[in-house]
Amino acid sequence: MTSTNVRVLLANRPVGAPTLKDFSIVEETPAALGAGELRIRGEWLSLDPYMRGRMNESKSYVKPVEVGAVMCGEVVGEVVESRHADFVVGDRVAGDLGWQTLPVSSGAGLRKLLPGVPPSAQLSVCGMPGVTAWCGLLLIGQPKPGETVVVSGAAGAVGGVVGQIAKLKGCRAVGIAGGADKCRHVVEDLGFDACIDYKAGRLREDLKAATPDGVDVYFDNVGGEILDTVLARMNPFARLPLCGLISQYNATLPYGLRNFRAVLVNRIKIQGFIVFDFKEHYPQAIGDLCGWLAAGKLQYRETIADGIRAAPAAFIGLLNGANLGKQLVRLG
Amino acid sequence: MTSTNVRVLLANRPVGAPTLKDFSIVEETPAALGAGELRIRGEWLSLDPYMRGRMNESKSYVKPVEVGAVMCGEVVGEVVESRHADFVVGDRVAGDLGWQTLPVSSGAGLRKLLPGVPPSAQLSVCGMPGVTAWCGLLLIGQPKPGETVVVSGAAGAVGGVVGQIAKLKGCRAVGIAGGADKCRHVVEDLGFDACIDYKAGRLREDLKAATPDGVDVYFDNVGGEILDTVLARMNPFARLPLCGLISQYNATLPYGLRNFRAVLVNRIKIQGFIVFDFKEHYPQAIGDLCGWLAAGKLQYRETIADGIRAAPAAFIGLLNGANLGKQLVRLG
Repeated sequence: MTSTNVRVLLANRPVGAPTLKDFSIVEETPAALGAGELRIRGEWLSLDPYMRGRMNESKSYVKPVEVGAVMCGEVVGEVVESRHADFVVGDRVAGDLGWQTLPVSSGAGLRKLLPGVPPSAQLSVCGMPGVTAWCGLLLIGQPKPGETVVVSGAAGAVGGVVGQIAKLKGCRAVGIAGGADKCRHVVEDLGFDACIDYKAGRLREDLKAATPDGVDVYFDNVGGEILDTVLARMNPFARLPLCGLISQYNATLPYGLRNFRAVLVNRIKIQGFIVFDFKEHYPQAIGDLCGWLAAGKLQYRETIADGIRAAPAAFIGLLNGANLGKQLVRLG
Repeated sequence: MTSTNVRVLLANRPVGAPTLKDFSIVEETPAALGAGELRIRGEWLSLDPYMRGRMNESKSYVKPVEVGAVMCGEVVGEVVESRHADFVVGDRVAGDLGWQTLPVSSGAGLRKLLPGVPPSAQLSVCGMPGVTAWCGLLLIGQPKPGETVVVSGAAGAVGGVVGQIAKLKGCRAVGIAGGADKCRHVVEDLGFDACIDYKAGRLREDLKAATPDGVDVYFDNVGGEILDTVLARMNPFARLPLCGLISQYNATLPYGLRNFRAVLVNRIKIQGFIVFDFKEHYPQAIGDLCGWLAAGKLQYRETIADGIRAAPAAFIGLLNGANLGKQLVRLG
């Protein structure tokens, strides 16, 4: 066990795409715990696209990370010291502890890991990305057997689960991802019916071929031109859970959406959502996801960066689509 | 009573804004009625923005008008001849009878006028425009007392009713309309709390001033830049019933919507709708609207073109916002 806490701070607010210079790495000697606190040795850090929004000053659904503060992020780890009544040394926990190796917590928002589920999976398929997929697809998308569900970012941590749940619900699942390798993974490993490589430059034609009956649910993680193209393919009364806009997060001039008329003509329902809006559904979602995982019905892939100092580059890669499946950082 | 049926046909599919040359006017000598048919002497023809969409060939929610066919549209009139079991001479009826003075009907889709309600109002405040406002605002917008409801096209047949219902439900009602005269009408005659003249060139600033607590419901009739501007002002969990996109109907290159990110950040719900989707709610809607009208709680204004031959110019004017309130054509 290391005796220092290595932390990644936000050094500057990026303009456009973040660079390594927007982060700084510091080492601290841990202070003694206060009453009610506990110390965790981090094992895994989750990297997620939403973190890009937190680097901006602009008003969003949660407060931005302050310049000079530790980057926000979910960590899985082991309690190594505790002055908290509910946690003892050896407990395995997860929570929003930030990009650091030896975080201290008040216990607020901290959850104990589920037994029998791999710890890293509790940051992906059985954690927030999986719950995001479950809530957005089932509560907003409301897919019916035989319908066609399209999801962008299909090789990512959320998108991969969306398509697999769609299959479990009797739908045709079509992914959109960047590159032939990702598309092969989505079809061969995750079991989607088809996956379109948007980088191949034939998105409209390929989408048409992959969705002969149109699109009933479009779970969007990316926005921009892909959203615009799928809009034009949507059926009457289609649903569009809007989960992310990763193509726009680094944009200084947002993409101008031209096919919005489809929303009127086809009476499409669009709903932006954040997983936190659905807290009352977490137990059911996690129960379903862990059950499917245990039964071998949910596949997942992880891309692992080694060590906290690799986190900034891994995050920049995530925004550029360098990862396959869940992007994690191994901390310990 | 005239002995000829004067009809307005679609002569060409317009590219961009329609012109008078896109219509042709013909006179016919009425043929004898077939079994089960009835003949109506038209009194009022309704002109509505949706008709622009029917002039295009592209797939929409209903079939386009064929070139050479009579333009579609709702007519109020009196039965002057009947071989139909359910209608007798003298019955006052309304239905989609097209732009013509002496239509023949099979009775399908024809409704008898409500007693005690002015016939022309059964094409506006107590007809489809009023029902559209009621369904979109109450079923999709779901305004709560104290919330702020914004509606574009506020001086039009639908928008004027939206704001008045919002007031009846205890909301702050803010209109957007083109020109100082329309805005004065919306505030002074219809009782909105405020109305923004988008032609004054300060939409963003004026909207901010008129909505100090942000926007909870935006009932959109126009799309384009106005939609984009209101999106950026919407509150968390706001609702956006999308009823029309009149600013785009004549556009050859659609406006590119840049503030779509607000939908994600503020978890906005957008739903395109057509009044026909809510048929099971018509009785309740018409009951409410006629009740409010009888109680003096709903005001409305009509712009009247005289004679069927004036219909094409009046329709072109409607698309350019020349009307105040409901655009009608007096037929008889």
